[in-house]
Amino acid sequence: MVERLGKYTLALNSHPSITGCAAVVGKTEGEGPLKDEFDFIFEDDTLGETSFEKAESALQKEAVTRALTKAGKTPDEADISLAGDLLDQCIGTSFGLRSLNMPFIGLYGACSTMALSLGLASVLVDCGAAKVAVASTSSHFCSAERQFRLPLEYGGQRTPTSQRTATAAGASVVESRRNDKPTVDAVTFGRITDLGIKDSNNMGAAMAPAAANTIADFLQDTAASPSDFDMILTGDLGIVGSKLLCELLQKDHGIDIESVHADCGLLLYDIEGQDVHSGGSGCGCSGSVLNSYIMRRLESGELSRVLFVATGALMSPTSSLQGESIPSIAHAVLLSKPLSK
Amino acid sequence: MVERLGKYTLALNSHPSITGCAAVVGKTEGEGPLKDEFDFIFEDDTLGETSFEKAESALQKEAVTRALTKAGKTPDEADISLAGDLLDQCIGTSFGLRSLNMPFIGLYGACSTMALSLGLASVLVDCGAAKVAVASTSSHFCSAERQFRLPLEYGGQRTPTSQRTATAAGASVVESRRNDKPTVDAVTFGRITDLGIKDSNNMGAAMAPAAANTIADFLQDTAASPSDFDMILTGDLGIVGSKLLCELLQKDHGIDIESVHADCGLLLYDIEGQDVHSGGSGCGCSGSVLNSYIMRRLESGELSRVLFVATGALMSPTSSLQGESIPSIAHAVLLSKPLSK
Repeated sequence: MVERLGKYTLALNSHPSITGCAAVVGKTEGEGPLKDEFDFIFEDDTLGETSFEKAESALQKEAVTRALTKAGKTPDEADISLAGDLLDQCIGTSFGLRSLNMPFIGLYGACSTMALSLGLASVLVDCGAAKVAVASTSSHFCSAERQFRLPLEYGGQRTPTSQRTATAAGASVVESRRNDKPTVDAVTFGRITDLGIKDSNNMGAAMAPAAANTIADFLQDTAASPSDFDMILTGDLGIVGSKLLCELLQKDHGIDIESVHADCGLLLYDIEGQDVHSGGSGCGCSGSVLNSYIMRRLESGELSRVLFVATGALMSPTSSLQGESIPSIAHAVLLSKPLSK
Repeated sequence: MVERLGKYTLALNSHPSITGCAAVVGKTEGEGPLKDEFDFIFEDDTLGETSFEKAESALQKEAVTRALTKAGKTPDEADISLAGDLLDQCIGTSFGLRSLNMPFIGLYGACSTMALSLGLASVLVDCGAAKVAVASTSSHFCSAERQFRLPLEYGGQRTPTSQRTATAAGASVVESRRNDKPTVDAVTFGRITDLGIKDSNNMGAAMAPAAANTIADFLQDTAASPSDFDMILTGDLGIVGSKLLCELLQKDHGIDIESVHADCGLLLYDIEGQDVHSGGSGCGCSGSVLNSYIMRRLESGELSRVLFVATGALMSPTSSLQGESIPSIAHAVLLSKPLSK
């Protein structure tokens, strides 16, 4: 029942539902403004594991297990799992999910992974390839810092444009439509966009052009305007990237999203009080905000239509050392409140 | 038109066709037994680029561009591109494909990527989500060696069980059925399997159990037996993994595939003469063998039914250093000769 709309957008005419979702976070995230929204807050960021990478795996497994439980499903009932993370070779995901024995599609979309996995899961449910699909992702401040930047022990200073990788994981279970659950109505898979930004401490700026393209594509394909949404929610553009996104959409496309724009990287932390510079980032940032704060408000009907646009920066430490710019991507997923609300 | 068969398999009842494919390889691969099968052999493994990573990106772009050209399509006509590679954050793919401006689903399946991307592309075409989908992958001996093992300059000795990462890329273009082109009839997405192998110089042994599971699942779901196929083609199990696969299938499932089993890692090189130890590996190994030797024989009708089962080892250097075992996965894609043959 997938229908192509315009050049880039897929309408999911069976309107698959998110029947269960979960977000679990670390200590700092659990001290932020969304502290009452999460399924679980780990006071110890190691989760009792012997490495940060193993902690991240445990975090993602926890989110997936909780989401399945809330949907009333066992891992064995999942027809497909779609997931990825930021770590080299996506080990947060493969080690986190290996014991669950679900058919598995590994994804790499950097911080866009929650939109990529949820969008693809919804397409597979819509077309009947899966009855139960699980989308998930994770990130961990400590595993990301030492992989992408510097060992924590070094105590390096961060630039004002830098963002804090969230210690967080999110998971959504998608099944065919249920009238009491939020639905996924459309998906736009983005194109790789690279405007030449090379500063890996300014990922918001690198990713904003990708978000602008995908939002403009989605609005054109669906003949919609920003006022048709309660919220256009980007993944983790932070302060710098969010400002740039609004400017780019205005300048290049004549689209003003400022009154409905929100960013998971700005929602997750108390930006001033928690010393997170330009805001949050990491796959788990949008993964946890979507699967807690946003999904609760969709379920209750407080939010009616949310365009979720997670962004990812597709560089690596190696490409940056080789002087390359930062290719980015953004995927959009249209979410609606339950029919019964 | 996707139909679920048994617990794990998807029948693609519209039988999408592979309308174009291409394989490009490096010098060593171009001196092997398949030298006359490839679309292009690069005599200089740097492809004129300033780093091995950039060379790998160029290699994948070359394969994708050639496959699209052979299908009579431009990148702008591609509704979706699905791809991944072995490099950290999949930069072989993101930098290789960024200029082509195609909607992009990034995948991480290690050496299983060709089956993962081709299988998912075929599902998306089958269900109408895409009219033209491009599946691709790449690997490069030099970028893989320095990332996963040791700098080439070190001149380290390799164990007899080790495999050579192929400098190679493959791409397939999938569209709706054409009677003169091979078809994709069914797909099984595998489950992560980990029997505790920890030796990253023996990936064949780590991946064999995943291949055994996926092959057994596929045969059970489709009520088929090995003799129903001209070939059950694994990705890159090499000598050690291939032997183990046949043993595991016989012992655990009572299935004898020996007479129809072939392995891309054993087809790509002259195992004795080219000093490749246990055979070839890397995403590009099965990517290039499938999109040259195999696809040509399907197109001509010399092969009628091939079950392509690429395997991936989902560990990272970090997880191995932390003492972890190697989780693996295998995805299966059933390919048939054109209706007109």
